[in-house]
Amino acid sequence: MTEFNQPISGNDLARFSGPNSFMRLPQAERLDGLDVAVLGVPMDIGTSWRPGTRFGPKQIRAESAMIRPYNMATGAAPFDSLQVADIGDLAINTFSLADSLRIIRDSYDGLLAAGVIPVAMGGDHSITLPILRAVAARHGPVALVHVDAHADVNDTMFGERETHGTVFRRAQEEGLIQPDKTYQVGLRGTGYTAEDFTEAQGWGFQQFPAHELWFKSLAPLGAEIPRDIGDRPVYVSYDIDSLDPAYAPGTGTPEIGGLTTPQALELIRALRGVNIVGCDLVEVSPPYDPSGNTALTAANLLYELICVLPGVKHR
Amino acid sequence: MTEFNQPISGNDLARFSGPNSFMRLPQAERLDGLDVAVLGVPMDIGTSWRPGTRFGPKQIRAESAMIRPYNMATGAAPFDSLQVADIGDLAINTFSLADSLRIIRDSYDGLLAAGVIPVAMGGDHSITLPILRAVAARHGPVALVHVDAHADVNDTMFGERETHGTVFRRAQEEGLIQPDKTYQVGLRGTGYTAEDFTEAQGWGFQQFPAHELWFKSLAPLGAEIPRDIGDRPVYVSYDIDSLDPAYAPGTGTPEIGGLTTPQALELIRALRGVNIVGCDLVEVSPPYDPSGNTALTAANLLYELICVLPGVKHR
Amino acid sequence: MTEFNQPISGNDLARFSGPNSFMRLPQAERLDGLDVAVLGVPMDIGTSWRPGTRFGPKQIRAESAMIRPYNMATGAAPFDSLQVADIGDLAINTFSLADSLRIIRDSYDGLLAAGVIPVAMGGDHSITLPILRAVAARHGPVALVHVDAHADVNDTMFGERETHGTVFRRAQEEGLIQPDKTYQVGLRGTGYTAEDFTEAQGWGFQQFPAHELWFKSLAPLGAEIPRDIGDRPVYVSYDIDSLDPAYAPGTGTPEIGGLTTPQALELIRALRGVNIVGCDLVEVSPPYDPSGNTALTAANLLYELICVLPGVKHR
Amino acid sequence: MTEFNQPISGNDLARFSGPNSFMRLPQAERLDGLDVAVLGVPMDIGTSWRPGTRFGPKQIRAESAMIRPYNMATGAAPFDSLQVADIGDLAINTFSLADSLRIIRDSYDGLLAAGVIPVAMGGDHSITLPILRAVAARHGPVALVHVDAHADVNDTMFGERETHGTVFRRAQEEGLIQPDKTYQVGLRGTGYTAEDFTEAQGWGFQQFPAHELWFKSLAPLGAEIPRDIGDRPVYVSYDIDSLDPAYAPGTGTPEIGGLTTPQALELIRALRGVNIVGCDLVEVSPPYDPSGNTALTAANLLYELICVLPGVKHR
Amino acid sequence: MTEFNQPISGNDLARFSGPNSFMRLPQAERLDGLDVAVLGVPMDIGTSWRPGTRFGPKQIRAESAMIRPYNMATGAAPFDSLQVADIGDLAINTFSLADSLRIIRDSYDGLLAAGVIPVAMGGDHSITLPILRAVAARHGPVALVHVDAHADVNDTMFGERETHGTVFRRAQEEGLIQPDKTYQVGLRGTGYTAEDFTEAQGWGFQQFPAHELWFKSLAPLGAEIPRDIGDRPVYVSYDIDSLDPAYAPGTGTPEIGGLTTPQALELIRALRGVNIVGCDLVEVSPPYDPSGNTALTAANLLYELICVLPGVKHR
Amino acid sequence: MTEFNQPISGNDLARFSGPNSFMRLPQAERLDGLDVAVLGVPMDIGTSWRPGTRFGPKQIRAESAMIRPYNMATGAAPFDSLQVADIGDLAINTFSLADSLRIIRDSYDGLLAAGVIPVAMGGDHSITLPILRAVAARHGPVALVHVDAHADVNDTMFGERETHGTVFRRAQEEGLIQPDKTYQVGLRGTGYTAEDFTEAQGWGFQQFPAHELWFKSLAPLGAEIPRDIGDRPVYVSYDIDSLDPAYAPGTGTPEIGGLTTPQALELIRALRGVNIVGCDLVEVSPPYDPSGNTALTAANLLYELICVLPGVKHR
Ligand SMILES: [Mn+2]
Ligand SMILES: [Mn+2]
Ligand SMILES: [Mn+2]
Ligand SMILES: [Mn+2]
Ligand SMILES: [Mn+2]
Ligand SMILES: [Mn+2]
Ligand SMILES: [Mn+2]
Ligand SMILES: [Mn+2]
Ligand SMILES: [Mn+2]
Ligand SMILES: [Mn+2]
Ligand SMILES: [Mn+2]
Ligand SMILES: [Mn+2]
Repeated sequence: MTEFNQPISGNDLARFSGPNSFMRLPQAERLDGLDVAVLGVPMDIGTSWRPGTRFGPKQIRAESAMIRPYNMATGAAPFDSLQVADIGDLAINTFSLADSLRIIRDSYDGLLAAGVIPVAMGGDHSITLPILRAVAARHGPVALVHVDAHADVNDTMFGERETHGTVFRRAQEEGLIQPDKTYQVGLRGTGYTAEDFTEAQGWGFQQFPAHELWFKSLAPLGAEIPRDIGDRPVYVSYDIDSLDPAYAPGTGTPEIGGLTTPQALELIRALRGVNIVGCDLVEVSPPYDPSGNTALTAANLLYELICVLPGVKHR
Repeated sequence: MTEFNQPISGNDLARFSGPNSFMRLPQAERLDGLDVAVLGVPMDIGTSWRPGTRFGPKQIRAESAMIRPYNMATGAAPFDSLQVADIGDLAINTFSLADSLRIIRDSYDGLLAAGVIPVAMGGDHSITLPILRAVAARHGPVALVHVDAHADVNDTMFGERETHGTVFRRAQEEGLIQPDKTYQVGLRGTGYTAEDFTEAQGWGFQQFPAHELWFKSLAPLGAEIPRDIGDRPVYVSYDIDSLDPAYAPGTGTPEIGGLTTPQALELIRALRGVNIVGCDLVEVSPPYDPSGNTALTAANLLYELICVLPGVKHR
Repeated sequence: MTEFNQPISGNDLARFSGPNSFMRLPQAERLDGLDVAVLGVPMDIGTSWRPGTRFGPKQIRAESAMIRPYNMATGAAPFDSLQVADIGDLAINTFSLADSLRIIRDSYDGLLAAGVIPVAMGGDHSITLPILRAVAARHGPVALVHVDAHADVNDTMFGERETHGTVFRRAQEEGLIQPDKTYQVGLRGTGYTAEDFTEAQGWGFQQFPAHELWFKSLAPLGAEIPRDIGDRPVYVSYDIDSLDPAYAPGTGTPEIGGLTTPQALELIRALRGVNIVGCDLVEVSPPYDPSGNTALTAANLLYELICVLPGVKHR
Repeated sequence: MTEFNQPISGNDLARFSGPNSFMRLPQAERLDGLDVAVLGVPMDIGTSWRPGTRFGPKQIRAESAMIRPYNMATGAAPFDSLQVADIGDLAINTFSLADSLRIIRDSYDGLLAAGVIPVAMGGDHSITLPILRAVAARHGPVALVHVDAHADVNDTMFGERETHGTVFRRAQEEGLIQPDKTYQVGLRGTGYTAEDFTEAQGWGFQQFPAHELWFKSLAPLGAEIPRDIGDRPVYVSYDIDSLDPAYAPGTGTPEIGGLTTPQALELIRALRGVNIVGCDLVEVSPPYDPSGNTALTAANLLYELICVLPGVKHR
Repeated sequence: MTEFNQPISGNDLARFSGPNSFMRLPQAERLDGLDVAVLGVPMDIGTSWRPGTRFGPKQIRAESAMIRPYNMATGAAPFDSLQVADIGDLAINTFSLADSLRIIRDSYDGLLAAGVIPVAMGGDHSITLPILRAVAARHGPVALVHVDAHADVNDTMFGERETHGTVFRRAQEEGLIQPDKTYQVGLRGTGYTAEDFTEAQGWGFQQFPAHELWFKSLAPLGAEIPRDIGDRPVYVSYDIDSLDPAYAPGTGTPEIGGLTTPQALELIRALRGVNIVGCDLVEVSPPYDPSGNTALTAANLLYELICVLPGVKHR
Repeated sequence: MTEFNQPISGNDLARFSGPNSFMRLPQAERLDGLDVAVLGVPMDIGTSWRPGTRFGPKQIRAESAMIRPYNMATGAAPFDSLQVADIGDLAINTFSLADSLRIIRDSYDGLLAAGVIPVAMGGDHSITLPILRAVAARHGPVALVHVDAHADVNDTMFGERETHGTVFRRAQEEGLIQPDKTYQVGLRGTGYTAEDFTEAQGWGFQQFPAHELWFKSLAPLGAEIPRDIGDRPVYVSYDIDSLDPAYAPGTGTPEIGGLTTPQALELIRALRGVNIVGCDLVEVSPPYDPSGNTALTAANLLYELICVLPGVKHR
């Protein structure tokens, strides 16, 4: 039918069968010819409350077996357009956060050198710092769409400078991102100081707290962000805890009053046409997801992100 | 107090006691005198992903013990108006889908001949095909209100023509429904082809995808459908996966971005006055419903459906 | 930094460590010097369906370890403003509802005599009757903000006059509350008679059923209630089942079609400036809360209630 | 086939279908003609730690659908021998322990007057005191086989004399049992005083602590007890927490180091030939039984108890 | 180190990473060069009570990531001895039991023609009938070691002759097995007739009911069976419900009073030296296995079965 | 009654109430006057498979509320004999294993200098290495009773020398323990090399693999070990995974075929009279313990360890 990799169809092999790759896409060991590489970064030692994101990639892949190739709402046909494969998991060191971050950085340097767009399944949010280091090394400081309950701009936690709560302060300090083209969507909850959010605003970060988004479509905001980004390279970091715990209970640091999945879908779909150079979906913790639906949600959001990658045709 | 069957009151017998009938209504073995027959069709061998709907009727009944007789929002008083009983479960053949569908058809022929309105607790959605065959045999092609994440209009699945994903293509081919009076509400997700939904639109099906309904009341749509139906006989098939997994996690093929329970209630309540000749609530899978609240939701939606059956008085 | 008690910071002691007090505040054995006393009333023998609220206080405390001191949305800084401590649990008699209610009354007389504002973690809703008796004894009949799926105005249940379903009829009969300054928000579901809600309206209760609040901000209602209350002393009784089961599955008598957490937050935040003399959060049942997020929600709502207590500074 | 009530066969009606009666036996509303009445006593307000036994009867019935009529190990054919029915649940007052115990007593007086052998599904262990009062009123002081982790011989708990932990002290004080024909099997754990067990030995109770039974068959003890009882009327009270939590996790006050199900089966099977006048199986708490297997175990133990009732034929 | 396929080491790639193959062995698409093919048969439509075994292979593979290559108790070194790979899942038809059994038969004909020893992960027990048909076609009637709570010798269920409860009657009728070299170990529970087990004894089946094995080592029995088998080709069919539900809760038709894992290990280890031509492990149902340990047990038993295949060296 | 700290009685304050300290003992901030300090080491970043032991101390404390002061089986009366308190949790650095191990070492130096016997609730097994360093610094190389499924004698894991799998190789290399007075009980499962266990035997370790202990009392072994130890100082390290997963499902690296709780109790009780200078109970992972009973088991084993500390009187 097409020259591109296709997910195994649920009508050819029962959905509960087959490889545990993302959407049951082919598993690739080599990068040549790939446009998009889906990969797992199974790690939870950068988290401060509930663990479990080490099992995130495995569970997201399992639930992704439900997804069919065509996007009924947007017409996107990613597997008619791009060569996509699941390249497996990074071989992190589960006993050392510092070493794991180094491994992620090195691996991403290789992925980016091969010209693929990396789509990461976390893992906790600390994985995004080494990813951004590699991305900025290749593309220069990028625009950042960061969807999260938390700004993740702490300076240190227990004296550590690289954890899931300090990612975007480090990214800004190191010049990995363009501060005034950094959009933080879904922020809420409580802070250690009254200035927890506002300092980042001073750097130029554009913050859209959840309570300003309640009850309404994100289409208007979704239209605004791409306009503001223009043709800059952009990285999308999606923390599943941006969603309300009703929609995504299986996460490490849940905060009430969050986004809904319709809002998440609108936000991602609005990114069609921007120059996405990489993205991640982090903080899915299967042990706290008894129905499996948080991983299902993550799988769908990753699919929707793939649907807005550059080059995807719509029908 | 009244000549009609009444649910056992939670103030007479503790809710965790008593028969496991729907709302603890009397269990009837004979149909004479009944206006409405609530029944279980405990079957899950027509499903393609997670199983478990075989336990749907049992769990829906268990959770229905919470429901009291009067509808506070609408004033409906179904048990002041109609003779309702739980007639138990159909004796399906759990090893053969084909044989089970035949048994359902035969049973429904009997129910309809007795003049009762059947209210079915599924079971997976494949039960609706033999039900519609019986309904059409008695009432002719019916209008159909079909609330679902999926259109269920596949041609075949693994070569099989009668599964939970092919019901409404078969119903249209066999002339069981009036295509232009067929309303599919809540559709979403991904498809095997880009035309998964549009072909059915060509048959006349009126489709209301979930993303067009997000964030807003379904009262306007709810007002429109009955107007369009007029006094035609109508069958209502309610797939619990039309709801978002946040509201109904316990189902076999969940899709994110779905309806909310307020929307579901509005939609059903809007059907007051139409000529409902039967209805079902399908796809509740208790093993994936750790809190029991999906079954509770199903029980309430069935109660609301009973509240809009012909002849129900409001106070 | 301040003379007031502070929660232990998640950056000083890992959140999964330390005392199981509310927000890891100091545990106080004496009341002198306290402005606000957080306490547990671990009891579930006044409930009619699922039990488990006896573990509510323990689980709410456990999940409260996630909460940081500053309210990012409202700027409230309660621990810069008031002396707050967790004073532990009341020593109820788990074998006798009557005796437990007596113990609660006696304990509250002592708390109120000491001039603290009591913030209770239930327990089932039956605890609110003896609390209101003590509150009225000290403050006279109070205004009441009662957020709940249920009006809790039954006369008797199994012949008993004091259960979780009869609280506010008793409160009105005994003159503990000002009926026309009683606001019941979130009511829904089914009733034993068609008059289950309307009788209370006759007493003057202002009822805001859930279906009138669907899809929209509660800020307007939130603005109205304080205006109507004026400077009367007010008690806030928050039944977690006011929330939809999608948001709060872990409760004893869930009803579909409920409030969302954004609505709950708006409603509580609107109470800033009223003269709250006490409050409770009831009906959290951990055995029905597999992800722990109902308790997390309860902990956050209690925090938000503390943020609107008289005297709290905002930044 | 026989004149006696038969369980519905799993080959006639799928096991997940049909009435929620014990073993899907007929539900009887009248006692005449019955030899054995299986009944539920759904109550958990006499318990001191985890609640949930109010759902015990419902869950035991649900899991009993697995059981077929013939005992493969012993040859017992109870439904070829006795008229057995499920007579439903006692209408206890879930808000008052004292009132509930009174209702149980009154109900049992009626059952025993009708000459049936009552087989009770609890409920917490406090139900056994009123049962023994009724039993002793009819049969005089009975021999007692009491299988439990706990001796349940506290004097008071929170000042209450009738709870799940005081049953057998009361029974001995009131002369309901023959102390020297009272066998307590499976005792273990910790005590409030060093004399927690030994005082009861002074009354004549024969105690068989779990640690004396580890690793070995209970057939020898099982042979001894009937010899010692002779033809006295005997009541069997089986607390599911006698089993190790590995075998029965779903209970309110679990104690490690308990009996195994092989031991439980041996003990019950050894009672063949004694004059059992009633029995109960208590303390099954479904909310703590995620796999449902504690209720399954309880259902099987109740079946085995029925297999050793007077008059049961063996093949 | 060796020319044979090796499991990925947990010290090379974190156990929660990598392919979801059995023990993270290489996934093979072709059979040439293989000695042993591990495969999944994900199916649950042949089961009569709880479903879920369709997810068995996926979950067994997931939990098998814990297993290291060397057997510490027996010294077996299977991956120093044999070429083992995971060949994925059979593409069964999830809507038709008959068609699925046909697919299994055809697939096994191919596997056996290629000379590999097939090691199947079920799936419900109905898969064993087509497997035995293929095995007998190649090897003639085989000796059978059948470990199970149930004899699975029903004639029909709901009129069907091929279900998980009729396998071994069919196998005996069709001459697939040598009746007097058929060993059924672990039988227990209840039966539809008093002759449920004894009829099979009449065919020559050697039955070892669980109650004769309680409390003791299976080493003696384990020594006896191989002696009796001699050098006949033997098939081993291991139903996980042979284990007590304490050890294996996650199964469809659990029966209390079962084997322990030490007994299971002894039994399998005793088979060293017999001529095993194939084996299966069936009836693992993940939805009923909240801790995942039933699948872990299954993975270990499959590993132990591989350790006793012909040709495995010991160190 | 006594001058010593007492647990709060379940008859004074309902068990689900009160502080979350071990057995609801007083929480001490200072060490003077203490004989025994119970403490938490909430950490899971040294684990290789399932995480979650960071919540171990909290959950063990919660379940310990069931335990009463007197040991019914042995007569031990620890709280009549010793001053015991819960001193809370160590403030580990959850982002750095190396730093956390350093903190544990420093904290233990302080504890031992104060002359208390530390009783630790883990956390994963990596905590035992810094503990042994402190213990050996004070007492010299100690005898070690190590109960575990695993020998934990790997050299490195992912290149790291200090993880939960390398503890006892390090301890032996560093001379912290007396190799020929090191007893490893319960070993089983699979290994990375055929010599995984035997190398340690070469150092002098006395290993008692699980399969040599199946089906029988550990009293003989329990008698042997103290005889062999004599009056040496001894440390007891108890890994909950020594128990079979049926008894302790909630752990990170479960292995089938393990010890039973009767065996665990026998083994600990046999240590009465030896000179225990410290002990720990590690690897309880609450997210994998849906019933809570693994934590309950851990709490009881810790209690039993306290019962055999030097100086405990028996009655
Ligand atoms: Mn984040
Ligand atoms: Mn976040
Ligand atoms: Mn459907
Ligand atoms: Mn659907
Ligand atoms: Mn209420
Ligand atoms: Mn309520
Ligand atoms: Mn008891
Ligand atoms: Mn007990
Ligand atoms: Mn079988
Ligand atoms: Mn079986
Ligand atoms: Mn260990
Ligand atoms: Mn271990």
